[in-house]
Amino acid sequence: MCGNRPSMHKLFSDICPDDCIVTSDRLRDLDPGYCDTSRKAGVMLRPDTTDMVAAICARANQHGTPLVPQGGLTGLVDATATAPDQVALSLERMTRILRVDPLQRVIVAEAGATIAELDRAAAEHGLTTGIDIPSRDTATLGGVIATNAGGVRVIRYGMTRDNVLGLTAVLADGSVIEDMNTLPKDNTGYDLKQLFIGAEGTLGVVTAAVLRLFPRPAAKASALLACPDLASAQAVLGLAQILAGGNLLSFEAMWPEFYHLMTGYQCKGREPLPPSDALHLIVEVTGQTQDAAEALLLAIFETAAEKDLVQDGVIAKSDAERAVIWAIREDSDLMMRPLGAMLSYDISIEAARIDDFIACWTKAQAQHFPDVHSYVFGHLGDCNLHLCVGLTPDAKRNRGPIDDLLYATLADTPGASFSAEHGIGLQKRARLAASKPAATLTLMHQLKQTLDPKGIMNPGKVLI
Amino acid sequence: MCGNRPSMHKLFSDICPDDCIVTSDRLRDLDPGYCDTSRKAGVMLRPDTTDMVAAICARANQHGTPLVPQGGLTGLVDATATAPDQVALSLERMTRILRVDPLQRVIVAEAGATIAELDRAAAEHGLTTGIDIPSRDTATLGGVIATNAGGVRVIRYGMTRDNVLGLTAVLADGSVIEDMNTLPKDNTGYDLKQLFIGAEGTLGVVTAAVLRLFPRPAAKASALLACPDLASAQAVLGLAQILAGGNLLSFEAMWPEFYHLMTGYQCKGREPLPPSDALHLIVEVTGQTQDAAEALLLAIFETAAEKDLVQDGVIAKSDAERAVIWAIREDSDLMMRPLGAMLSYDISIEAARIDDFIACWTKAQAQHFPDVHSYVFGHLGDCNLHLCVGLTPDAKRNRGPIDDLLYATLADTPGASFSAEHGIGLQKRARLAASKPAATLTLMHQLKQTLDPKGIMNPGKVLI
Repeated sequence: MCGNRPSMHKLFSDICPDDCIVTSDRLRDLDPGYCDTSRKAGVMLRPDTTDMVAAICARANQHGTPLVPQGGLTGLVDATATAPDQVALSLERMTRILRVDPLQRVIVAEAGATIAELDRAAAEHGLTTGIDIPSRDTATLGGVIATNAGGVRVIRYGMTRDNVLGLTAVLADGSVIEDMNTLPKDNTGYDLKQLFIGAEGTLGVVTAAVLRLFPRPAAKASALLACPDLASAQAVLGLAQILAGGNLLSFEAMWPEFYHLMTGYQCKGREPLPPSDALHLIVEVTGQTQDAAEALLLAIFETAAEKDLVQDGVIAKSDAERAVIWAIREDSDLMMRPLGAMLSYDISIEAARIDDFIACWTKAQAQHFPDVHSYVFGHLGDCNLHLCVGLTPDAKRNRGPIDDLLYATLADTPGASFSAEHGIGLQKRARLAASKPAATLTLMHQLKQTLDPKGIMNPGKVLI
Repeated sequence: MCGNRPSMHKLFSDICPDDCIVTSDRLRDLDPGYCDTSRKAGVMLRPDTTDMVAAICARANQHGTPLVPQGGLTGLVDATATAPDQVALSLERMTRILRVDPLQRVIVAEAGATIAELDRAAAEHGLTTGIDIPSRDTATLGGVIATNAGGVRVIRYGMTRDNVLGLTAVLADGSVIEDMNTLPKDNTGYDLKQLFIGAEGTLGVVTAAVLRLFPRPAAKASALLACPDLASAQAVLGLAQILAGGNLLSFEAMWPEFYHLMTGYQCKGREPLPPSDALHLIVEVTGQTQDAAEALLLAIFETAAEKDLVQDGVIAKSDAERAVIWAIREDSDLMMRPLGAMLSYDISIEAARIDDFIACWTKAQAQHFPDVHSYVFGHLGDCNLHLCVGLTPDAKRNRGPIDDLLYATLADTPGASFSAEHGIGLQKRARLAASKPAATLTLMHQLKQTLDPKGIMNPGKVLI
């Protein structure tokens, strides 16, 4: 491999100025983000225009050189993994916010801009992005589009796909698909942008996009509610959607083991609600004023309590109290401190089958891996659960059997998904190949062949 | 052509029972819907299962026989047009509603079910479909998916694309892409269903789908507001989105000539608001109670009036009053009675450019066609205008020059779309070919070639 690194560098030297090229030795020193092998490429190119990206793709295609598009490196399935015979194509220098149109309610930006930067630019006009994820300060526009990122506001604003009005993508051969549409409605032919949303850079490189913006909520109110069981929690969701109409912003759930664990680290003795066998919800609504938002939340709380759907609850009375509640849910990395490496799963299950799945998994785990514990939390409003399994020293050496048992249990759950929002990358491509119908896989491979006949765009990701 | 009709019939006789085959002579007697040539096929097949659709496609592909998928025939761009050497593939017998899941908030149905039938089934569970169009009693699930239909609720629930969670599609070669996903979040590989949404049956036939459902609003309130100009109307939109949050259901506009014309027919002397030079808005919001919805609407009205954004207005106090207001906007077919055939355009324009476009068009029309008049109305909340041009006897004989002038004026408007929600079909394929960048057209043709190499799926529609 080493042998071809210099030539890989030279391959693009007439296209890219020196400051756009990072050689492998310097690359090794950079933060790999959430993917251990994101910095193992033979060279990293950092183009600063779509034209330069196009020239790089054309050249790479000509020589059959693999390109790995990279954004903020906050993905969780190794979609940005690289090898010495591959070129890392980073959008990190294409960070310009080109336009905010407050009348049209859109923001137009290059793919390297972070979600936090986009939201700050929107805020200057009293607007907000619909997309929000915990890694907002690092995750980029191109990255959330390539992974169709979800987050904690999906119940209100939808997935990334629902927020993208237009984009510019460069294909493997260097041709540029420019569709920077800013209109809510445009039915002029095939909606090509959909091909690149969620394709993890395997069909093209997104270099710029147009996102919808929304009026920035004047006020938010957050509550922590304790429900006796999942059925009650789901009934609270129904109530909240009816009472809050379109003003329900988040609806998150924490199963007892998770709530115990997290409050134990973060606020032992000062828990907003005492640990119990209850299923804890974080419900957040928006309003024109703080009083209006809190009144709406109180109405949801009281109506639910009257129906015995909620046994205890607290509404945050300050940003500090709100932060405490969210920290229990969002700082899940904390789990790793005492427990060490964990297995983390990102699954979707139909509302009516969630209880059955958790029961089946608990039973199967107790039978086959009595020493490990599972912690469940997630976006209940979207049927998306994050299930974390704490590893014993033994299990750490061999995670395969736990993966297999978890996914086998999930496969027995009709209509479930083994990747709700994290995508496929390298980590789940075997599950994808094993779980999709033959006709579906065939069409996915045909699309890949059509858009990238030489297979240079993020090869080996998503599809085997 | 006549010669091959019997053989076309025989071609499928071993696949389709007699009651599934309508020969050309009987076909001629059927209502063609909104497309004059929808009944000109050599034969119409009416399969009742996805398997039968697959068998028909495989057989047609084998013989290179063109198939034209048909739903409710309410499309406005001749996407269902047929010729004697083509087979009409009607989904009219696949009308089963397979499942309503009130907990998951989805409805699962075959493609031939009408939008009204779906909404009635949803209503039994206190839910509603997000999709609603004036042709709801005839338009089918498959049809709205094939055309990515819009309507009067897009500002609240999005386009059809935003409402489809899963679907089953049959490809030209008879292979079946089954993705009846019911989950809000599923990032397992390429989102193949996007290929078939808005493709007007040129990439495959949709035979079933899963739609999101939403809590059925307990109450609606509607207002007719008169604004001094477009800038004021757009400011009212901003206010309404802020004050109503997610509870704004419709935001429609009627320019003065349209309002004069329609009230003249429908309620002369009894107009909810007297005709004037004002731009009239229909604003509709939802609420938990009728009082709450009307109070919200009144708050929007009063806040707008304080800012001099609205000069007059009325809030409907009964369903009858509500019907009168909506009839002014929705019964636009009435225009054709006195004016005869009209040209109707379905365009999208960025909010900041709408006034300029209308000024340019008015000037160009006055200069080149002084005898014709234009009437503008539409979904202002979505930047989607419907522009109708009344035809003089002379213009009726030759619409081309008016089309050319209209689209040339639109082409001078940056970021505009010549088809917001009606699609391309036969009518606009030349505009598509003339207006899209070469790389975009190339990729569209590559997709067509990949999914339908023999070109049997609705040939000649969308792409030339």
